[in-house]
Amino acid sequence: MMDPVNDGSHPFEAGLGRRPANYVPLSPASFLAGAAASHGAKVAVIDGPRRHTYAALYARCRRLASALRARGVGPLDTVAILAPNIAEILEAHYAVPMCGAVLNPLNTRLDAGTIAFSLDHGRAKVLLVDGECAPLARAALQLVRSRPLVIDIAAPGLADIRVGEHAYDAVLAEGDPDFAWEGPADEWQSLCLLYTSGTTGDPKGVVYSHRGAYLQALGNAVTFGLVPESVYLWTLPMFHCNGWSYPWAVVAAGGTQVCLRKVEPAAIFQLIAEHRVTHLCGAPIVLSMIAHAPPEQRVPFAHTVRCATGGAAPSSTILRTMEELGFKVTHLYGATECYGPGTASLPRPDWAALSTEARYDRMARQGTALTTLDAVMVADPGTMRPVPQDGETLGEIMMRGNTVMKGYLANPQATEATLAEGWYRSGDLAVWHADGAVEIKDRSKDIIISGGENISSLELEEVLTRHPAVMLAAVVARPDPIWGETPCAFLELKPGTAVPTDQEVIAFCRERVARFKVPKAVVFGPLPKTSTGKIQKFVLREQARSL
Amino acid sequence: MMDPVNDGSHPFEAGLGRRPANYVPLSPASFLAGAAASHGAKVAVIDGPRRHTYAALYARCRRLASALRARGVGPLDTVAILAPNIAEILEAHYAVPMCGAVLNPLNTRLDAGTIAFSLDHGRAKVLLVDGECAPLARAALQLVRSRPLVIDIAAPGLADIRVGEHAYDAVLAEGDPDFAWEGPADEWQSLCLLYTSGTTGDPKGVVYSHRGAYLQALGNAVTFGLVPESVYLWTLPMFHCNGWSYPWAVVAAGGTQVCLRKVEPAAIFQLIAEHRVTHLCGAPIVLSMIAHAPPEQRVPFAHTVRCATGGAAPSSTILRTMEELGFKVTHLYGATECYGPGTASLPRPDWAALSTEARYDRMARQGTALTTLDAVMVADPGTMRPVPQDGETLGEIMMRGNTVMKGYLANPQATEATLAEGWYRSGDLAVWHADGAVEIKDRSKDIIISGGENISSLELEEVLTRHPAVMLAAVVARPDPIWGETPCAFLELKPGTAVPTDQEVIAFCRERVARFKVPKAVVFGPLPKTSTGKIQKFVLREQARSL
Repeated sequence: MMDPVNDGSHPFEAGLGRRPANYVPLSPASFLAGAAASHGAKVAVIDGPRRHTYAALYARCRRLASALRARGVGPLDTVAILAPNIAEILEAHYAVPMCGAVLNPLNTRLDAGTIAFSLDHGRAKVLLVDGECAPLARAALQLVRSRPLVIDIAAPGLADIRVGEHAYDAVLAEGDPDFAWEGPADEWQSLCLLYTSGTTGDPKGVVYSHRGAYLQALGNAVTFGLVPESVYLWTLPMFHCNGWSYPWAVVAAGGTQVCLRKVEPAAIFQLIAEHRVTHLCGAPIVLSMIAHAPPEQRVPFAHTVRCATGGAAPSSTILRTMEELGFKVTHLYGATECYGPGTASLPRPDWAALSTEARYDRMARQGTALTTLDAVMVADPGTMRPVPQDGETLGEIMMRGNTVMKGYLANPQATEATLAEGWYRSGDLAVWHADGAVEIKDRSKDIIISGGENISSLELEEVLTRHPAVMLAAVVARPDPIWGETPCAFLELKPGTAVPTDQEVIAFCRERVARFKVPKAVVFGPLPKTSTGKIQKFVLREQARSL
Repeated sequence: MMDPVNDGSHPFEAGLGRRPANYVPLSPASFLAGAAASHGAKVAVIDGPRRHTYAALYARCRRLASALRARGVGPLDTVAILAPNIAEILEAHYAVPMCGAVLNPLNTRLDAGTIAFSLDHGRAKVLLVDGECAPLARAALQLVRSRPLVIDIAAPGLADIRVGEHAYDAVLAEGDPDFAWEGPADEWQSLCLLYTSGTTGDPKGVVYSHRGAYLQALGNAVTFGLVPESVYLWTLPMFHCNGWSYPWAVVAAGGTQVCLRKVEPAAIFQLIAEHRVTHLCGAPIVLSMIAHAPPEQRVPFAHTVRCATGGAAPSSTILRTMEELGFKVTHLYGATECYGPGTASLPRPDWAALSTEARYDRMARQGTALTTLDAVMVADPGTMRPVPQDGETLGEIMMRGNTVMKGYLANPQATEATLAEGWYRSGDLAVWHADGAVEIKDRSKDIIISGGENISSLELEEVLTRHPAVMLAAVVARPDPIWGETPCAFLELKPGTAVPTDQEVIAFCRERVARFKVPKAVVFGPLPKTSTGKIQKFVLREQARSL
């Protein structure tokens, strides 16, 4: 960076400093104040039979913020929430920042022990619990060292089983709908805390800033084409990287959000048709669910639905079916550490001349940086030098910019290891193409090394999902006395299809990949998945070891 | 604002400070680096027969930046440019910030004296001059106290008349296409200098920051729906508020920009059809030009072109014709002091139930704040208290946020008068509607006070343009011994229509407005306009005085 020149003496700086008229610290909470002023009468949130206009949503958030304040919640206090994608978790995304507090959305599919760890580690002062999550919350609260104040959110159709001392609606009723909240004095102030579902060791608490979330929201809005007419369906959990910042991005654009308690294909199709949904996000498992929905659950719609997916590359089979159904898919790549999406595989001029298969291949790449991310590179993890853009040389994906986390909470060692060298190190191994797109070859730990040759589990999975009976495929390394490791394939089959034999699958692969890459073992059955739909390869690795 | 909490001791801040991996000062120049990495092979700029891909555009800008650096241009030095909407002025919007220097786009339609004043006042170190502007530049340079280094841009078809000592292409050829430019260390650093074409006194130099321009670009992209597929036609001068930040907004979205030396309806229609233009901006005079284009100049196009207009409210006649031609018009409102657009009249749910006329009426309002502006209000200029949102009480439009200027260069008095009270004071008189939309009733100085009653010149102009023979209308106050002031109407008629009599026009008004508002005098003829198409009411006021 250049030497600072803003000592105030230069004519271009003298008397031209920041002041309230021209400088407001960035905060995603400001998007709601803006939308309430600009789109007050418009429906902001649809949640089952409930509808909140922007004016009503803003009033509800101000009520909650003032009620939390009245209970002593102030700057940098933690407010945790355990809830599916309902209106209340959206409200928490505004009300908590309006107090200057830190929102900690918890993964509802985790075990009580991990939830308890997060509550203690994050020093949660308040916990909001949806009725559906009451048993999990109750179990977790028996394990915590310090019990937070608990506010219960009523779940429709569930008996009123209270975990805590307050009901959400009563708290809201106490609050001031005109609460004069104030944004942070410093936009670097911490905004959110997200625990990564680490596969080993304790979860790490990723910390976001007001500035980063504001910019990520705008970056997503531009990349995904969110406009006031957009209707966004919640098929990605909001506890996952704050739903990739869409609770703020949709409001920044003045669009409408449709909540969804449980991600099921029938409900997805019905809501798309009923509300003319224009956008949704989800892990490939959500796309797979949509693509494989039984015909009687499909409700036809005439418009195009933009669908962003990330977490793993969508297979060509899924992409084809999604396009046939009327979805326009964009593949994103990112991490909790970079506020969700960091890159996207956007259409390029030369795609028009490609075959459909080749285009799906390009779409499945991780692509290039969002406009609000400063840069992405594939680099040698030792020297930090970028690898050549030759589509062949393997390196680690690294990202830099305002949408990279502040660091891990109370974990300086992990923060340093991840951010110290000027880039966020993703741990993902990739090549860099001439057109700038990065393409993951594997997670460092997912690469299979057989007889000294690297085998990409992703390549094998893409081939396996082309088999007509296969719905999902996961390939992991299996220890082998001769080769060191060999690939072991786990396959989840489409319902109602005839189960192929191991030998059929192996023969199918042999026709399509180099011989040394062909899986040596094949296992059929449902695959273990994380709460966000990622396949839990560490579970499969254990299984493969004991085969 | 809250008390700062970032002393670094709180666990949510300890070890979680800004560092190169997660903090990059905002600068619009970064959008080009990003687009070159993400969309390198895509056409970024079309200028007549010339095409530059993003990779080529970035290389050209880096060449220019390095060549300017080699000539001693550094942080906060001023680089002025006198050019129409050609590729080179777009390049200057990136190359100059890449040097840390300040870009000063000059209005090509001003007189030599004003240009000379700006060059001296802004301390221009370099002046880029397009061949078309050579005579103006030469005349201005004879008046300056300190002559800048002059770089000539060749204009096609014009004899090679050099004003200065260097040719743009030669300078580019010397430059380094891989120049390792650095963004500002402080995003508040000054980026651009825009002289307002004040109607009295010396022009004031509005100063923009890197931060403000970055955010305004994203705000415009979201508001106007810019996406990678967007094709933007340059019908708004880039010297006017940096073309409302679109040189950066289109690149932030990864779209394509189509340059246009001279704004003429035939060229506009032809380029829309040829390049499938999706977006354009312009003063109402541009819309008027499009709407009244002779049939033989109209080239049909099947898609919808989004068209943003500001500077004055579009009349219902213009809106109707534009919609019939396939344009979707958005009315914006702003000022040089707020980076161009500050508010927009976006469609609202209740518009669907309105008659076409009523909808045009709503569209012509100034609307609500862009998502990146913190707030707009209509307030009592004395007490700074917001007026009620009753659509009746008159107040002054005020805006606050990161997209408000740093201030006026070397003019602390004007800066204080405009920004001191926490808001940018626009000087525009408006009412505030219940739905949040502001509606200008008049510039403070444009209101007509007749017999103690306020008469809105805007209301009369809207009525007058409904007359079938009228193309443009301007109403100003004329001194009157009895009433104080009376309205005087100046009318520019449609070509080829029969000239109505004064009495016909007066009768037309009498049927449509209160009697005291009816113009007492009517003058026919072409209206005097500023370089950006705004009608020069101060000229008409002089004329009215001597009637």
